[in-house]
Amino acid sequence: MTYCVAMLLNDGLVAAADSRTHAGVDHVASYRKMTTWDIPGDRAIALLSSGNLAVSQAVVGLLNEGVPAANGGQVESMLTVASMADAARLVGSAIRWVDQADGPALRQQGVAVDVLFILGGQIKGSPMRLYQVYTAGNFIEAGPETPFFQIGEVKYGKPIIDRVITNETGLSEAAKCALISIDSTLKSNLSVGLPLDVAIIRRDRYRFEVRRRIEEGDPYFTDLRRRWGEGLRSVFNEIPNPNW
Amino acid sequence: MTYCVAMLLNDGLVAAADSRTHAGVDHVASYRKMTTWDIPGDRAIALLSSGNLAVSQAVVGLLNEGVPAANGGQVESMLTVASMADAARLVGSAIRWVDQADGPALRQQGVAVDVLFILGGQIKGSPMRLYQVYTAGNFIEAGPETPFFQIGEVKYGKPIIDRVITNETGLSEAAKCALISIDSTLKSNLSVGLPLDVAIIRRDRYRFEVRRRIEEGDPYFTDLRRRWGEGLRSVFNEIPNPNW
Repeated sequence: MTYCVAMLLNDGLVAAADSRTHAGVDHVASYRKMTTWDIPGDRAIALLSSGNLAVSQAVVGLLNEGVPAANGGQVESMLTVASMADAARLVGSAIRWVDQADGPALRQQGVAVDVLFILGGQIKGSPMRLYQVYTAGNFIEAGPETPFFQIGEVKYGKPIIDRVITNETGLSEAAKCALISIDSTLKSNLSVGLPLDVAIIRRDRYRFEVRRRIEEGDPYFTDLRRRWGEGLRSVFNEIPNPNW
Repeated sequence: MTYCVAMLLNDGLVAAADSRTHAGVDHVASYRKMTTWDIPGDRAIALLSSGNLAVSQAVVGLLNEGVPAANGGQVESMLTVASMADAARLVGSAIRWVDQADGPALRQQGVAVDVLFILGGQIKGSPMRLYQVYTAGNFIEAGPETPFFQIGEVKYGKPIIDRVITNETGLSEAAKCALISIDSTLKSNLSVGLPLDVAIIRRDRYRFEVRRRIEEGDPYFTDLRRRWGEGLRSVFNEIPNPNW
């Protein structure tokens, strides 16, 4: 399984992902689920993926090498698309290409082409955007009322995001919230695991301010997990027991 | 949807359930999902249900009125079974009766006989037990390593239980934890709602120490929600932001 979250804030974009993959409990491995593209000063784009790993890797491959346009026109890649809206359509086209190529054989095996992507970033000349792209290649966009998307094992880590994140939240604070959200998920679900990837893009800078891999033993994350666990315990202890 | 949780502790049993039912967003209603039976000094039993409401109400009806034994023998009800193990088998038999009676017509409508029960309590002469009973009528039992069961929308409220509950946890503290777990679920999922039912059975007393309905505006629950929300915010604020 997977847990990925991305938040679109007034100041910019925060994205975080785990890297645990498993196909049965005896086949647990670590794969990067965040892919980033950037041309500093021109664009910074992060893609988070969940679902069938072969399909999502094939999609990322196409986004790197270029996806032929549906009308037979020009080949576009994440480094050439003109706007984030075009980038979202490109992810959709890539999924449809992979579905056409591999879908029939997969379905013969009883396996669904089942992927979900979160795509966020900014390309010079157009606004910063955050999208969730579905298996069918269609997508929805985050807005001021719903400033975040989650994919994978989303429920364990949702309460803290619901409590904390608004458009006003600063980028570092949002990154902290994303890590706490992932910590809750790690705590309750074995299929989500370290290392983590975190990316931060400040609005109108067109570059990654942070692109960080958090491994087991990372001092900041270790301290955050300890403080959060102890803090929860102490808030819990301070609430009086019911006197029924 | 539903959220129910029950914990088997050294001191006894704590059970809690919400009461939101919906069949489509324009048909939201409140139904008790916790049913209790007691003969003070002899037995105290709580049953929590999730899934198809017509099926779970039919099962509860049979447990009240009596389920004929599979071999055509005596009719047993929750007030006559001799042990909690027998009570778990009785819930299983009741599900199978309902499936036999209503299952074919339901399946013709494309509706599955889909229920999950948590059954806990104690009957004089045998130990306190906690079971989860499946649609097929079979069941598993909670043990020292897994002292709690959850059914329904279980994920939002799992992290706090994972952090707090062990066999050593006292009954009042466990009830507090169950309410916080429900609060996290209420916060993130519209399909879970007040009022709540809470029950506590102390070991070897064979009676309910607490059977309480918590309505909107309940002073203890309102205070707990406020303290928990504010406490989380303040723990969150006290953790330093990353200095990447």
